[in-house]
Amino acid sequence: MKQGKWKPEEIEKKSFSIIEKECTEQGIFVPEEMKSIVFRAIHATADFDYARTLVFSDNAVEEAQKAIRSGASIVTDTNMALAGISRRTLDRLNCRAFCYMADESVASEASRRGITRASVSMERAVKISGSVIFAVGNAPTALMTLYEKIKKGYRPALVIGVPVGFVNVEEAKELILSSGIPYIVNRGRKGGSTVAAAIVNALLYEADPSRGGEYSL
Amino acid sequence: MKQGKWKPEEIEKKSFSIIEKECTEQGIFVPEEMKSIVFRAIHATADFDYARTLVFSDNAVEEAQKAIRSGASIVTDTNMALAGISRRTLDRLNCRAFCYMADESVASEASRRGITRASVSMERAVKISGSVIFAVGNAPTALMTLYEKIKKGYRPALVIGVPVGFVNVEEAKELILSSGIPYIVNRGRKGGSTVAAAIVNALLYEADPSRGGEYSL
Repeated sequence: MKQGKWKPEEIEKKSFSIIEKECTEQGIFVPEEMKSIVFRAIHATADFDYARTLVFSDNAVEEAQKAIRSGASIVTDTNMALAGISRRTLDRLNCRAFCYMADESVASEASRRGITRASVSMERAVKISGSVIFAVGNAPTALMTLYEKIKKGYRPALVIGVPVGFVNVEEAKELILSSGIPYIVNRGRKGGSTVAAAIVNALLYEADPSRGGEYSL
Repeated sequence: MKQGKWKPEEIEKKSFSIIEKECTEQGIFVPEEMKSIVFRAIHATADFDYARTLVFSDNAVEEAQKAIRSGASIVTDTNMALAGISRRTLDRLNCRAFCYMADESVASEASRRGITRASVSMERAVKISGSVIFAVGNAPTALMTLYEKIKKGYRPALVIGVPVGFVNVEEAKELILSSGIPYIVNRGRKGGSTVAAAIVNALLYEADPSRGGEYSL
């Protein structure tokens, strides 16, 4: 194990081949169109549970690709997830990514109204024009607020619902599953900012014509 | 499940009580001094494996607390981990956090020398004076470079070695376990930027006199 022995792209290729092999050994079948997303979530966590718990609406990948090709806005509920999204790929695809959580005005409005910063962030994000992809890796209240807006007619291009946690998380994910909009949701307690970013990157990489390999960085 | 029903600090308190209860039910014993760190790693991932795979050198928490009270520098190997560390708590404790990964000069030096940006980042970080805590959630090469420097006499205050992955990750963690310096390492493949940030935050929160509760945000 010497430094410089492996190039990053070789390590990633080898990682994905290990993930694919172990999924097969464990009897997990991942449909072709979900592979890059499921494998990248496993790559970010080394946790094969994601192969069993990530659920996709029928049109999720297709709708996401359409949105990305039209120059989507991607909104996260943490600055961690935002930091994990590939800037270079966003730029190449004329997409943008935002997180409102650290805005002073979001904090003060949340405090004044007695709701979470994540809820206020989502209220701001639904005003963005054009296609919006939401990547929620932390706050169940972000999903609850989006659900309220969707009930009133708001249509996001995709909701990636992968908050992690022990309180309200599973219930908030179920709301999105019932909402009728395109979704990628991780059922159960698991998820997080790294998973949210991994799913966004998988979608971006697939849309990026400069990338040769299906799973390449 | 109404928004505003739960305050963030109540949700966190309830989450930690669920984590503690389920650890007990699963027959997992977590020593008192490791609880806040192990529970916060589980809180960040909803993955109880961390209660079995996180290993601490004898003096890890004590050395970390000493470093933090002396105004430590915390160095991460991803901007995601950096974004996950509580800025407010850092400021209160007169500590600082850095990540060199996005520096242009790091990228160009790495490319010129045919090594990873993470290795170059660590070479820069070991030049920081005073107590340095390393939080590595991604790159095994960061741990390998630190190990080389430690062999030559460098003494970090603590190495948090929790990179995630399938190639070289387990071997790099074993190097740190054998290095004789204070460490918190997650054995095996699992880890990541959220876990690295969670462990840093657990250490910071314990040192923060303005925090009442052991596990409070």
